[in-house]
Amino acid sequence: MAIVDLNCDMGEGFGVYRLGDDAAMLDIVTSANVACGFHAGDPLIMFETVRLAKERGVAVGAHPGFLDLWGFGRRTIKGEPPGDLAKTVTYQIGALQAVAAAAGHRVTHVKLHGELGNLAAADLDVALAIGRLIAAVDPSLVWVVQAGTAVERAAEMVGLPLASEIFADRAYTDEGTLVPRRQPGAVIHEPEVAARRVREMVEDGAVHSSNGRRIPVRIDTVCVHGDTPSAVAMARAVRATLESAGVQVRPFSSTGVRAALGGAAR
Amino acid sequence: MAIVDLNCDMGEGFGVYRLGDDAAMLDIVTSANVACGFHAGDPLIMFETVRLAKERGVAVGAHPGFLDLWGFGRRTIKGEPPGDLAKTVTYQIGALQAVAAAAGHRVTHVKLHGELGNLAAADLDVALAIGRLIAAVDPSLVWVVQAGTAVERAAEMVGLPLASEIFADRAYTDEGTLVPRRQPGAVIHEPEVAARRVREMVEDGAVHSSNGRRIPVRIDTVCVHGDTPSAVAMARAVRATLESAGVQVRPFSSTGVRAALGGAAR
Amino acid sequence: MAIVDLNCDMGEGFGVYRLGDDAAMLDIVTSANVACGFHAGDPLIMFETVRLAKERGVAVGAHPGFLDLWGFGRRTIKGEPPGDLAKTVTYQIGALQAVAAAAGHRVTHVKLHGELGNLAAADLDVALAIGRLIAAVDPSLVWVVQAGTAVERAAEMVGLPLASEIFADRAYTDEGTLVPRRQPGAVIHEPEVAARRVREMVEDGAVHSSNGRRIPVRIDTVCVHGDTPSAVAMARAVRATLESAGVQVRPFSSTGVRAALGGAAR
Amino acid sequence: MAIVDLNCDMGEGFGVYRLGDDAAMLDIVTSANVACGFHAGDPLIMFETVRLAKERGVAVGAHPGFLDLWGFGRRTIKGEPPGDLAKTVTYQIGALQAVAAAAGHRVTHVKLHGELGNLAAADLDVALAIGRLIAAVDPSLVWVVQAGTAVERAAEMVGLPLASEIFADRAYTDEGTLVPRRQPGAVIHEPEVAARRVREMVEDGAVHSSNGRRIPVRIDTVCVHGDTPSAVAMARAVRATLESAGVQVRPFSSTGVRAALGGAAR
Repeated sequence: MAIVDLNCDMGEGFGVYRLGDDAAMLDIVTSANVACGFHAGDPLIMFETVRLAKERGVAVGAHPGFLDLWGFGRRTIKGEPPGDLAKTVTYQIGALQAVAAAAGHRVTHVKLHGELGNLAAADLDVALAIGRLIAAVDPSLVWVVQAGTAVERAAEMVGLPLASEIFADRAYTDEGTLVPRRQPGAVIHEPEVAARRVREMVEDGAVHSSNGRRIPVRIDTVCVHGDTPSAVAMARAVRATLESAGVQVRPFSSTGVRAALGGAAR
Repeated sequence: MAIVDLNCDMGEGFGVYRLGDDAAMLDIVTSANVACGFHAGDPLIMFETVRLAKERGVAVGAHPGFLDLWGFGRRTIKGEPPGDLAKTVTYQIGALQAVAAAAGHRVTHVKLHGELGNLAAADLDVALAIGRLIAAVDPSLVWVVQAGTAVERAAEMVGLPLASEIFADRAYTDEGTLVPRRQPGAVIHEPEVAARRVREMVEDGAVHSSNGRRIPVRIDTVCVHGDTPSAVAMARAVRATLESAGVQVRPFSSTGVRAALGGAAR
Repeated sequence: MAIVDLNCDMGEGFGVYRLGDDAAMLDIVTSANVACGFHAGDPLIMFETVRLAKERGVAVGAHPGFLDLWGFGRRTIKGEPPGDLAKTVTYQIGALQAVAAAAGHRVTHVKLHGELGNLAAADLDVALAIGRLIAAVDPSLVWVVQAGTAVERAAEMVGLPLASEIFADRAYTDEGTLVPRRQPGAVIHEPEVAARRVREMVEDGAVHSSNGRRIPVRIDTVCVHGDTPSAVAMARAVRATLESAGVQVRPFSSTGVRAALGGAAR
Repeated sequence: MAIVDLNCDMGEGFGVYRLGDDAAMLDIVTSANVACGFHAGDPLIMFETVRLAKERGVAVGAHPGFLDLWGFGRRTIKGEPPGDLAKTVTYQIGALQAVAAAAGHRVTHVKLHGELGNLAAADLDVALAIGRLIAAVDPSLVWVVQAGTAVERAAEMVGLPLASEIFADRAYTDEGTLVPRRQPGAVIHEPEVAARRVREMVEDGAVHSSNGRRIPVRIDTVCVHGDTPSAVAMARAVRATLESAGVQVRPFSSTGVRAALGGAAR
């Protein structure tokens, strides 16, 4: 029987601000990627998010981003040395670990946010520097990666366990990468369409491109977004469709993610 | 033979800014209280401070403050619930723990900064809320306290090990509290005067007030400041004077700090 | 025929965050108090708010607050010298003036935000320091005040034109001050109740206390809130009720606000 | 007789932090570019800088940068729409104008900071968007430009008066651009060498490249840096050398800067 995780970014408010309906999403997903105070998030929101996640059996991971609250971690910031970026990631993971400890929960994964994630996906130096410091903090942390990216390679080289992710609401190219947001059809808005695609890809063990090509990949987790108008409806549809097809939805941290090649070899 | 620690606040820069001569101070003191990014500090400065501390055998502790970079944690901010303040402290400790792990070092103590410290010293609810979350993160963390304050009491009630601190450059009242900064004679500027007082108090096991009264206290650590013009000279004088009097200067984390009363009960 | 202005705080988002439905409120109110980047707001949001206001004939004013984005200007921050607070207000007004110029509009009033407003209302030194610097920037700026506060007195002493404000959704004491938020009945949630009260008070030229007492005050403007669930409904009800009673609703900047007694007379 | 201005970036501290010896520099230079709170600066530092400048007859200009305190406006941030960048510049100019009014002084020029300056120098769309909003705020503001850049062209197209700048401590290529910092010899550290070069270039009305080539440019102002160890010594040497050669050193705002081509058309 297939097993898969549903993950969602959460705790992306700041001070009085909130983004998305975290309480509703926490009833649907199995892993929460919690913003750590750099692109969004603050200690109170982090604590509350982790507390609710614990209550509902949802796994929590760090969701570190650029130190750029104003740009929500989405501004393209170039030129920071990989080692410096890695230190900022380390800081954010540690902050969440302590907050999670205070809330009686535990951080079990890491997923990079926004432009930091894009940068690491494309730049092996950045990905490796980050991977090494994740491992220095806790080598059992599962790194959520997209197949074929530098982050996947870095996770393998560093020896971190990794969880391979697909996106519920994004179209794929024939190379298995995301269709850029500005192209028509890049983003899927209808919950039922997204849900059916996710089921097909999970059952097939492959990403399906816009052109109908299948690119086999391991699928440990499905990312659903939390900050769009149809977010909750789409997440519900994805989960219901998977479960009605007999797929078990549960946190990847308990499903035996891919042991990275690395540790051993190094 | 008497043993005492010398502690100093460090890493209190931000971005391009620096405060004090940390490199020089790290050759003199035995414990560094590292700013954690709220009143000052950032991941890069934290990493560098911890790395240097490790290199020189200096113990590191978290130095959490209010989320108030502009006010450097010195603005009086009222009304935040104790539990919320405690969560911000937790966040900061965790951030430093992870950065320290990345630098191959370990966080062994906590000392509150500025107005957050003043608030906790005067308000047992705040101190207790903070103490409980420190213990939740790591119950072996030594809490640096001033004798007679709510922080000392909270450390005892929560069962955290504590290190009792005196200040090298501050005059004391007959009650053993600090003479308010605005009163004449509140701050000692001459390195030799400060050094002699520290030696006398350490040898006597008591704080000496401006009026010549002695108030017996345990002295585990002596705070020297790092951001005044004579900071380095004063720290050197204090250390030299202590050592020439046969006092051993080393990190309190290794000297057997006071087991909190609570600890026993656990 | 009675004339009154309706004012509302706006532009209180930051980066990706938004607060309240500004577009809807701008169709109802006649004056917008625009956050200026300290407790909330940023240059893009400010520009967009002012642009929309201009388009709809809504007057704009600066809504300066504490430099405290995390606390949304609602943390109680003590001890900042009045002159320093005044400089932060000046900065914010100027920032909005330039943004307004870029958007083809003009800043015609000032209303203090949150705890900065509370502090100035209670502390004449703070209010005077702020008033003097408002006048230094532009002596024709109308200062929105609550009757009986230090801000009203400061506006008179400094010689700034002032607009006297009542709140649509708050109960009043027999002294004409707001019933503290934590007391039962302090906040009015039903649009129709609020609308009827506003009409009665505007027609009567007096604030009506919870106990039924009337306290005569000049009423130039009525504050409606923009960030509550019923905000838009309440603002619509207030405006409709006023207009159906023959009250003209238009910006106070064009209604001849109270000429302050003016430096001269005192 | 030749006339030239000396300009220097100032007020680049934040909260408790300071950068450079502004008080000393204000005795030497004739124009101060004042940081406006985005890459550095805050209302109190801005006020104090402007107050001292006024006292010493130094002209003040806005020195706007990216909203990036941590990176001091030196991180390369890509992809922000030109119009958005222009709004952030507008905000900063207005903030300084009001602070200057409160200090009894007046903002007479604008000089972009760091990476925002580099971006505008290379991208005419950005430079034009910024130039148009500077003109919307105050069309008499002098824009400090480097000859041959998009900023110079934008100033001309928009019709802003402009002041053409050379750098005291930077080597030039044969094309009249700055030798990149990482190349050997790019930065001149000896005050006397810098001072002699500046005198020669000012007298010659041309930039002198490392290879000895001369590129004729108008020179209205010479930039001296304030945040290097030899900053004050170099600024003093430059001024003394210019004056002993009979060059008059005074603010460009009073020397009749180049009327932009556009101006004529207006």
